[in-house]
Amino acid sequence: MNPINRYVQIVLVETSHPGNIGSVARAMKNMGLSNLALINPKTFPHQEATALAGNAVDVLDNARVFDSINEAIKDSKVIYATSARDRTIEWPTLNVKEAVEEINQLVCEDIEVSILFGREDRGLTNEELQLANKHLIIPAHPEYPVLNIAMSTQVICYELFQAAQDIPAKKWQDFPEYTAEELNNLIDHFNETVSSLDLVDTDNPKQIMTRMERMFRRLYPDQMEGNFLRGFLKAVNKRIK
Amino acid sequence: MNPINRYVQIVLVETSHPGNIGSVARAMKNMGLSNLALINPKTFPHQEATALAGNAVDVLDNARVFDSINEAIKDSKVIYATSARDRTIEWPTLNVKEAVEEINQLVCEDIEVSILFGREDRGLTNEELQLANKHLIIPAHPEYPVLNIAMSTQVICYELFQAAQDIPAKKWQDFPEYTAEELNNLIDHFNETVSSLDLVDTDNPKQIMTRMERMFRRLYPDQMEGNFLRGFLKAVNKRIK
Repeated sequence: MNPINRYVQIVLVETSHPGNIGSVARAMKNMGLSNLALINPKTFPHQEATALAGNAVDVLDNARVFDSINEAIKDSKVIYATSARDRTIEWPTLNVKEAVEEINQLVCEDIEVSILFGREDRGLTNEELQLANKHLIIPAHPEYPVLNIAMSTQVICYELFQAAQDIPAKKWQDFPEYTAEELNNLIDHFNETVSSLDLVDTDNPKQIMTRMERMFRRLYPDQMEGNFLRGFLKAVNKRIK
Repeated sequence: MNPINRYVQIVLVETSHPGNIGSVARAMKNMGLSNLALINPKTFPHQEATALAGNAVDVLDNARVFDSINEAIKDSKVIYATSARDRTIEWPTLNVKEAVEEINQLVCEDIEVSILFGREDRGLTNEELQLANKHLIIPAHPEYPVLNIAMSTQVICYELFQAAQDIPAKKWQDFPEYTAEELNNLIDHFNETVSSLDLVDTDNPKQIMTRMERMFRRLYPDQMEGNFLRGFLKAVNKRIK
């Protein structure tokens, strides 16, 4: 199995139209991908999904259905969220070609990644976008920059397939990266410690903590680093209580 | 009007499903194209085409309908035909990136081009393919290389748009990065705190602290993040002394 197919998971969040799920399955298989996760799809399975999947019914049959994003991405170490809107808080943002270049390197190092796609009508919520290490934008015309969800998947899978032949850069980390779940736990631990220290700016607590979350997600700590930080926070909490 | 939009015409040959025509219109407008020709569409106009066009109804409204390909392409000097199959007779064939590079040059010389897309079920006939100067192939997985027609249009329009204007990734940091000196101070502060907490592994203190330093240097904290971390360490030290 090629590493792109093995380690890239496409995650559709609360898709309304079953036809779109089918079209996504076809777009994936056309580009050699098969790993599909559905978060609370409105109607699935459905004959329209099957019809639009064409010869990619196997991708639909093997799709995993979850009721939370965190559950679906818990084995992924790097999370990309597709987004068309500008956000109040800036997040590390890549266009498709940049993201695909990065993903190609990650999968060659056996690192699992997930790419999140939001609802047809309103994309991903701010909370969902903040689960991601990076945001991924498909460059499009400013007059009408919002692609249909299946089209977005097609463009990204197409670029992944094109990039799959490239030679990876050398791996520098000697410990595996923290998983999404481990990283969530580290961020929670840090947030709790900040609260215990009465450090949160009461005027605007949300933004600084969102910024710190963004910082941790940008860091991609490995097991050694992440565990040392957990030990550090544990020691701090023991002393301040 | 950008030259790509001015000089590139998308030609759909005998499309069966009106929804596909709508999806193509949206895919085009998403990428700044508007010049659509329909050869003997089975059902057009149609509410499904309008629904799937989203905010690209203007592209549908301005689409020109013909009953022969030759009539539609008579002002074009270079004709590309999309094709998934291998043909009995060899034809000059380009993949999307090669074709788009060439098209980008042609339109900058005011040369009109048309790109032909065939029927959903059986593409273009051999006679139709022979109207083209070049064949255009979307690289895809050999197990299932046939993209839906709207998806094919999306991929090609996406590449045309990328070629027309290289959009740099958006800058995400809104505060300046920590200087080398500030970063050194942060790392020293962290190291001192670790010592105060008796956290250093006495067997091999150097390697873990070197790893943590590498982690901080990889992070490139900005002023806001770095200062919050300094404040955090200061609060910790106050409580543990």
